[in-house]
Amino acid sequence: MASVLVPFAQGVEEIEFVSVVDILRRAGIEVCTAALGDELIVCGRSGIRIQADARLDEVLDRAWDMVVLPGGLPNAHILRDDARVRALVERLHEAGRMVAAICAAPTALAAYGLAAGRRVTSYPACREEMEQLQPDAVYVDDAVVEDAHLVTSRGPGTALAFALRLVARLCGEDKAAQLRAEVVAE
Amino acid sequence: MASVLVPFAQGVEEIEFVSVVDILRRAGIEVCTAALGDELIVCGRSGIRIQADARLDEVLDRAWDMVVLPGGLPNAHILRDDARVRALVERLHEAGRMVAAICAAPTALAAYGLAAGRRVTSYPACREEMEQLQPDAVYVDDAVVEDAHLVTSRGPGTALAFALRLVARLCGEDKAAQLRAEVVAE
Repeated sequence: MASVLVPFAQGVEEIEFVSVVDILRRAGIEVCTAALGDELIVCGRSGIRIQADARLDEVLDRAWDMVVLPGGLPNAHILRDDARVRALVERLHEAGRMVAAICAAPTALAAYGLAAGRRVTSYPACREEMEQLQPDAVYVDDAVVEDAHLVTSRGPGTALAFALRLVARLCGEDKAAQLRAEVVAE
Repeated sequence: MASVLVPFAQGVEEIEFVSVVDILRRAGIEVCTAALGDELIVCGRSGIRIQADARLDEVLDRAWDMVVLPGGLPNAHILRDDARVRALVERLHEAGRMVAAICAAPTALAAYGLAAGRRVTSYPACREEMEQLQPDAVYVDDAVVEDAHLVTSRGPGTALAFALRLVARLCGEDKAAQLRAEVVAE
């Protein structure tokens, strides 16, 4: 069974966060949600309080198959500027494991220099920041963009497609198609 | 400003719940999430723990403009069988205020007899139960179905369209179109 870590902080976009965790768990993937701060309960950008499974420090060193960075502000900036998140993402990247980000969170991948020469996307309003951080990335306007082990997406409206794409990568296209029908996404 | 109550309990479908609360709050609508039990923190069907804004008893008697019943099991059955939820839904229904439900939750409307002669939908697997509870309802397979002040929808994959439809009803089509673009749902 694949294992996925979803770090998050204050201002997380709730639809993006919940879509990833819900859909991946429906696929039988082990998902751990990890709060960056000391408090397990984190308030999202729309005021919904979500309780994390763990604090980031407690689960940082496990051998995760994938890390997913949800969007929403200030969450995406807190993730980007956190040295532990950066080291985690770089560790997975160097090991050829999957790194995924949606909305404002792909700016973290650009800030770390991981989008060099890669096809990526983000929340439309973050495009300029992406291009300033990493001029040699190839910015694409598609809902979900894959390049090697990087998967990026645009916002709450693309979160379900993003989550189903991650299932396809971890569990195969048949599992993703089965889940798409199960959640009435067709 | 319109005011909307979202009662919920153990096993709530997280994408459905969060999509409604997030999108309606983005539209400037006052949304109160209310736990049916004593505990404010409620565990969803995919294991995500969400903290309610209030306990149902504390907010039941306010003059709500709309009630939205999210799906997920056992949440939808707990809602259906709760006398307070039934009285609340019947009170809004009789006052011509909006009542909305998604996934397994439209079965509550059928159980209360409110779907008589109305076009309604639900999670596909709940169709038979809907038709048994209310043979004179008109079951429709669309993602979102409206009939007078009843709005029903099918599952996590239709939750965003459902939430945007509720915004259109409460704030107008322009606001819904603006939000659809803001969340990159086009």
